[in-house]
Amino acid sequence: MSRIAYVNGRYVPHRCAAVHIEDRGYQFADGVYEVIAVRNGSLVDKGPHLKRLARSLRELAIAAPMSDAALSHIFAEVVRRNRVRDGMVYLQITRGQASRDHAWPEGLRPAVVVTARATKGPPAEVVTRGAAVITMPDLRWKRCDIKTISLLGNVLAKQAARDKGAFEALMVDAEGRVTEGSSTNAWIVTGKGVLVTRPTDEAILDGITRQAVIALARAAGLRFEERAFSLREARAAAEIFLTSTTAFVVPVVKLDGKAVGDGKPGPFTRRLLADYRAYVAAGVVRAGADKA
Amino acid sequence: MSRIAYVNGRYVPHRCAAVHIEDRGYQFADGVYEVIAVRNGSLVDKGPHLKRLARSLRELAIAAPMSDAALSHIFAEVVRRNRVRDGMVYLQITRGQASRDHAWPEGLRPAVVVTARATKGPPAEVVTRGAAVITMPDLRWKRCDIKTISLLGNVLAKQAARDKGAFEALMVDAEGRVTEGSSTNAWIVTGKGVLVTRPTDEAILDGITRQAVIALARAAGLRFEERAFSLREARAAAEIFLTSTTAFVVPVVKLDGKAVGDGKPGPFTRRLLADYRAYVAAGVVRAGADKA
Repeated sequence: MSRIAYVNGRYVPHRCAAVHIEDRGYQFADGVYEVIAVRNGSLVDKGPHLKRLARSLRELAIAAPMSDAALSHIFAEVVRRNRVRDGMVYLQITRGQASRDHAWPEGLRPAVVVTARATKGPPAEVVTRGAAVITMPDLRWKRCDIKTISLLGNVLAKQAARDKGAFEALMVDAEGRVTEGSSTNAWIVTGKGVLVTRPTDEAILDGITRQAVIALARAAGLRFEERAFSLREARAAAEIFLTSTTAFVVPVVKLDGKAVGDGKPGPFTRRLLADYRAYVAAGVVRAGADKA
Repeated sequence: MSRIAYVNGRYVPHRCAAVHIEDRGYQFADGVYEVIAVRNGSLVDKGPHLKRLARSLRELAIAAPMSDAALSHIFAEVVRRNRVRDGMVYLQITRGQASRDHAWPEGLRPAVVVTARATKGPPAEVVTRGAAVITMPDLRWKRCDIKTISLLGNVLAKQAARDKGAFEALMVDAEGRVTEGSSTNAWIVTGKGVLVTRPTDEAILDGITRQAVIALARAAGLRFEERAFSLREARAAAEIFLTSTTAFVVPVVKLDGKAVGDGKPGPFTRRLLADYRAYVAAGVVRAGADKA
């Protein structure tokens, strides 16, 4: 079965899914995106993703190309046509096509691309035994709160991790504080058993999985602080883990080559991974009920 | 006559010139570009542009897709097919097409797009009477020395200028120093008659016109200092001007609504504009001689 992509109003074979060379996404990284997990054919936390999308578009003054209902219809159609049961939906919206000029003309029609594919998430070994991560300076721009396709800094960080056999790169700001991973939010558990993650300033993306895990931590009665933490504090942490839409909750057992805590996934991490999986499963049930 | 673009080995009508939705330029801003001025059918400073391109590719570990001679052939062909006499050539090279993942697979074939069009440069009034500019914080990433398509910060700055009826936005770093314009390099002339422009660290692009103007200033015996200057110093400057491939030398006569110097293009600016025009004209003659 050949894959199908949605591109600007049409469902087309993936292999010939194309955009114009003067789409501003291609020439200027002038666009936003969302990745939504699919489980048992249902979209996980679609509402929060669409809410964040609306904010990203607003921050860049890109007009919403269609209603949430219309987008949702396309998501469902792309999932159906590609027969995705467990995987992800990818949505990209750019400002549209225009003769190249940094400033944009009025009245552009945003370009919309939606794809879906089956994915397995991170390797089982990474989830059960834990991942290695490296650290590097955060070179990105100052509005990482907007989910833009201007991802070159993230790309270089992820590749640096891959080159060293690591799963992820934690990025560190000029003050020595961890911002986030190249495609994940970062968390630590201190030696005193306090769960810590950075507040959502303009230096990090407010991950949808991050939001869910905060709620789960509170529901579980875990001690939790939303504050910036330093690389030094991360090095001394009892646990470190990462969250993202596609990776869920990933334990980190090695930081720059040194063991984190006892070198095994810790109890906070295992608990929150289990709780998040249960949350996703319950969400799938809810979505199924919505359909009925 | 319909425009023609070069896209990955083929010359195609501009209106249907397209790249795949999984070109990494579209999904990650994972690519570089160059803009080269065309005067009397010849490319201005093609050599320095190709040298900078090679550096940009190297910094991002993107393989050069072809030799300089092959690229030059495409430039000439696109200029010829579009009958461009005075205008610009636009070249974009991205890492290539791959299933979406921040890290890149080995062995990708870079994507290459070349277009050419007639352009007139900035409006004559802007050049003769001078431009208004605004200032804003520099939000961009920390590797602006690489000429990447990750231009969203530049786009937002240019649009902010346009929204205020200004020609350009000067960006200011966390220390209060001017970095550069959103698509230009920035220069001042102090009250003591010293020409100043920022050295090429990782915060600015080493403009090809910047390089030429430095050489012209030295040849003219002007007092010149290559050092960072503050916004405060710019406010007190006798002259401010901008340089870029397409705008050449543009006098700035208004900064955040206040007159620069006496509010008219100053003698340093007029001299360097005249010298740069002469330099370009001589280069066209040189290029013509090369062809013969």
